[in-house]
Amino acid sequence: MEDKLKIIPLGGLEEVGRNMTIFEYGNKIIIVDMGIQFPDADMPGVDFIIPNISYLKGKEKNILGLLLTHGHYDHIGAIPYLIHKIGSPPIFATSLTKGIVVKRQEDFKNGIKLNIKEIKRSDRFKLGPFEIENFPQNHNIPDGVGLVIKTPVGNILHTGDFKFDHTPVGDEPVNLKKIEKIASQNILLLMSDSTNAEMPGHSISEKTIQQNLEKIFKESNGRIIAATFASLLSRIQELIFLAQKYNRKVLIDGWSMKNNVEIALKLGKLKVKNNTLISSRQIKKISPKNLLIICTGSQGEGDASLMKLAHKDHKYLSIQEGDSIILSSSIVPGNEKSVQELKDLLSKQGAKIYHSQMMDIHASGHAQHDELKLMMEITKPKFFMPIHGSFYMRVLHKEIAQEVGIPKENIIISENGQVIEISKDRTLNIAKKKIASNYVMVDGLGIGDVGEVVLRDRQMMAKDGMFVIIVLIDSETGRVKQSPDIISRGFVYLRESKKLLFNARQLVINLVEHITQKQTPVNLNYVKNEIKEKLGEFLFKKTSRRPMVLPVVLEV
Amino acid sequence: MEDKLKIIPLGGLEEVGRNMTIFEYGNKIIIVDMGIQFPDADMPGVDFIIPNISYLKGKEKNILGLLLTHGHYDHIGAIPYLIHKIGSPPIFATSLTKGIVVKRQEDFKNGIKLNIKEIKRSDRFKLGPFEIENFPQNHNIPDGVGLVIKTPVGNILHTGDFKFDHTPVGDEPVNLKKIEKIASQNILLLMSDSTNAEMPGHSISEKTIQQNLEKIFKESNGRIIAATFASLLSRIQELIFLAQKYNRKVLIDGWSMKNNVEIALKLGKLKVKNNTLISSRQIKKISPKNLLIICTGSQGEGDASLMKLAHKDHKYLSIQEGDSIILSSSIVPGNEKSVQELKDLLSKQGAKIYHSQMMDIHASGHAQHDELKLMMEITKPKFFMPIHGSFYMRVLHKEIAQEVGIPKENIIISENGQVIEISKDRTLNIAKKKIASNYVMVDGLGIGDVGEVVLRDRQMMAKDGMFVIIVLIDSETGRVKQSPDIISRGFVYLRESKKLLFNARQLVINLVEHITQKQTPVNLNYVKNEIKEKLGEFLFKKTSRRPMVLPVVLEV
Repeated sequence: MEDKLKIIPLGGLEEVGRNMTIFEYGNKIIIVDMGIQFPDADMPGVDFIIPNISYLKGKEKNILGLLLTHGHYDHIGAIPYLIHKIGSPPIFATSLTKGIVVKRQEDFKNGIKLNIKEIKRSDRFKLGPFEIENFPQNHNIPDGVGLVIKTPVGNILHTGDFKFDHTPVGDEPVNLKKIEKIASQNILLLMSDSTNAEMPGHSISEKTIQQNLEKIFKESNGRIIAATFASLLSRIQELIFLAQKYNRKVLIDGWSMKNNVEIALKLGKLKVKNNTLISSRQIKKISPKNLLIICTGSQGEGDASLMKLAHKDHKYLSIQEGDSIILSSSIVPGNEKSVQELKDLLSKQGAKIYHSQMMDIHASGHAQHDELKLMMEITKPKFFMPIHGSFYMRVLHKEIAQEVGIPKENIIISENGQVIEISKDRTLNIAKKKIASNYVMVDGLGIGDVGEVVLRDRQMMAKDGMFVIIVLIDSETGRVKQSPDIISRGFVYLRESKKLLFNARQLVINLVEHITQKQTPVNLNYVKNEIKEKLGEFLFKKTSRRPMVLPVVLEV
Repeated sequence: MEDKLKIIPLGGLEEVGRNMTIFEYGNKIIIVDMGIQFPDADMPGVDFIIPNISYLKGKEKNILGLLLTHGHYDHIGAIPYLIHKIGSPPIFATSLTKGIVVKRQEDFKNGIKLNIKEIKRSDRFKLGPFEIENFPQNHNIPDGVGLVIKTPVGNILHTGDFKFDHTPVGDEPVNLKKIEKIASQNILLLMSDSTNAEMPGHSISEKTIQQNLEKIFKESNGRIIAATFASLLSRIQELIFLAQKYNRKVLIDGWSMKNNVEIALKLGKLKVKNNTLISSRQIKKISPKNLLIICTGSQGEGDASLMKLAHKDHKYLSIQEGDSIILSSSIVPGNEKSVQELKDLLSKQGAKIYHSQMMDIHASGHAQHDELKLMMEITKPKFFMPIHGSFYMRVLHKEIAQEVGIPKENIIISENGQVIEISKDRTLNIAKKKIASNYVMVDGLGIGDVGEVVLRDRQMMAKDGMFVIIVLIDSETGRVKQSPDIISRGFVYLRESKKLLFNARQLVINLVEHITQKQTPVNLNYVKNEIKEKLGEFLFKKTSRRPMVLPVVLEV
């Protein structure tokens, strides 16, 4: 066991998000990233999904560090929920990533003080049997890194999220020479970002995006309102550069974006001239053609800045005829309908809309087919493991690896929780048995208490509502006392269903008294089950709906 | 009033779907289409949305006919719900459209017998003050038509759903000359399909799609499983042609697709050689390389054929290594996640997947920018009204109209329920007041009874669940009898929340007895409201969730 390296992905392999991977040698552990995932439509009420860390229970003292690749929530968002549960190990992060993590921690009541160490983008340090060498990676947030993890069995290159951008904005161009040099140390295993493995060709450079955005600045005579992701600091930088060039002041709107901009400014990761940024109080004095508003809400999220504007529900802004609205983002799967609604509402109020299906005003931060291929060609790994992506994305990434000649048997398509072992003799073993890696759902203050049962109930009530009927049985006579109370929600419109409710009551009274006549003592559970079944059938017959039927039977 | 034409869209203007438009002259009415719309994610449990027909109440005798443009559900799907409520007027439909409408009607228990008249694709007939001339339109179902409605105030051209396809498969190529000739009669108003107004250029011809599909047939050595929309008969025809060319038998799988294929075969609208189609019992005898399965489920719908296959839940089919799966459809907005899941599940089982983001194996049935422009150039209308699309799509269509020189004031961007009046002197008036055109939701047997109240309750329970507490008050002493019963679902995992439930009961007992000590007689509504408020606060404080709190207070 001692001379084997274990790699255990706790998330990120069957989803885009929840990235967290354990590297264990002997009993020493390091972790890369600790991210959240956003819930699907069939998980109503769930705020986030975080990794299951039960494997680390009892191993807290052996955890030497948490390494962060960049400051996006799918890589750092679970820290406030989990870090104190694994013994608060030191966190290693570059300046901006550190700033974002610290700020987020402050937003959590009772959050512990983090033990966080700032590293440079090109840095080297030792953690027990591991030696870490990190290097800059382009993404759509500054200060991202990739990692080489040197272990006694060989060197592992973890790309983090990346794309190769030769002309980024507000970041250094990719230094392929540097990656080549790092890779010349003999890479045993390449773990590489699969998010865009479905996309052919090369990702669009941020410079191109900026050039397209500039066209809009040139033709707009009114205000420009640009919505993008709060964390897309590279895009925000591009917009600010353009505002300065075209003599516009900039208002940042949206809580999370404001936070990110503030952190980045403080750390010198955003370049902004004096007097460019203004506050909400100043906008009235500025003529429309001299104003750029950068805001959140490009996904049509109900509580974000642009959607409030669209709904005429914003504190101090409203859409005006002549506004140019830029949706500088992709549509996150699942948000298509709300983005359609957003566009309808905005265009109804006379705004002109520019979106990324019309022209290239958004680029993803993830490498596409040709870049993924280049990464493999540069690093020439023995083993290859596609990470960050659903199964299908990783299979496509695998096909790219086979194109460059990595043999099929050296490509690892595993699942979350599968333990991958590499021995000193460079042989690979993937354990069939998995450690716990199921979804842990965060809902309000509860972590992990919303599971399948609660979700199934929510889904069922969402579909057909619920129907509670309360029956009081006279313990002496066995007769039903009073008319049974009915509490129903989400099933039928009660005011127009009086006959249905009357018949339901009659059915239940008859049913109960039929049983109590014959049974002494009355088996209340039997009565409940009978009501549930017969009443359920009755309601379905009358409505073709299956509300959750919940009988309460009390003897008084 | 007498010499004015009223046009009243009941649906299709703020959505893609629910198409239905009233044309009224004097008191005589004709209707074009009667479609459904599919519900959004925030309408759990709702099956369909249908048009509100209250405007037609009392006018049943004046309805001279319902004209159908083609057999898709967003144009015909509401007939079984509505036709008998408007006096069962005659329906005018081409052969295939009629076949689909009649079949659907048979599926409804107690559905009336339709009064349906078959028309040719190029036909002319009079209905009171209206004269109808219809003409063939290409779409992705055969037998579609556009209409010219000749009225005493002028001629209206309604495009239906259309694209200009010079090389369709299984349909006649567009006859621009014919449309030109019809349009030469002086078009007062063009009402044109806006579904794809966002798309630049020209739609892809079905011939091109077939050529790309053929590449897959050439390189596949195993089974081919092609999933598409059940109603996409043109695509099904293309696939059948290819199967015949490449010596494959064809199995149609999926209830609705089977129905459609059966109808189309019977009417000669699908060209299939003898012995091409096989039944499920025959597939075992056929080697994989000689089999094509055409099925439903390209959207990852849980109950459709391909998703059952993916979940290993299909009656007689399972995925095999070597299968080629073709997803020959677009992704309907809102289905992105389920399609991702579908691809993951299928590729896990070793299938190779071809989808329309990889190559052109799907074309929309709707005209794009250049076709829309051409339609206007051919028809040269005085007035123009974009239909079939959300507000934003119609505004883009309006911009196209302005490009070809139609003046802004002659373009009608109205809302559902707005009455558009055109006088004999060719002046236009759009009434500000709207007639009822709100969503009518179908859920099971209920039509229209699920409204805002029921939906809001469903959404609320989906998010945080519900919490019913039942308190029995001794009418003599005012004390709480027994421990209050709690019925909670979708809120917390009850087994692990014993302390929370205990504290909730204590809070309620104390609260109730505090009130009953002071009040005689007890105001039960006051007690209920107090419980609702205080218990709600308590639960929120402990969990950050807001379940629907429903107190039941009974005096015994």
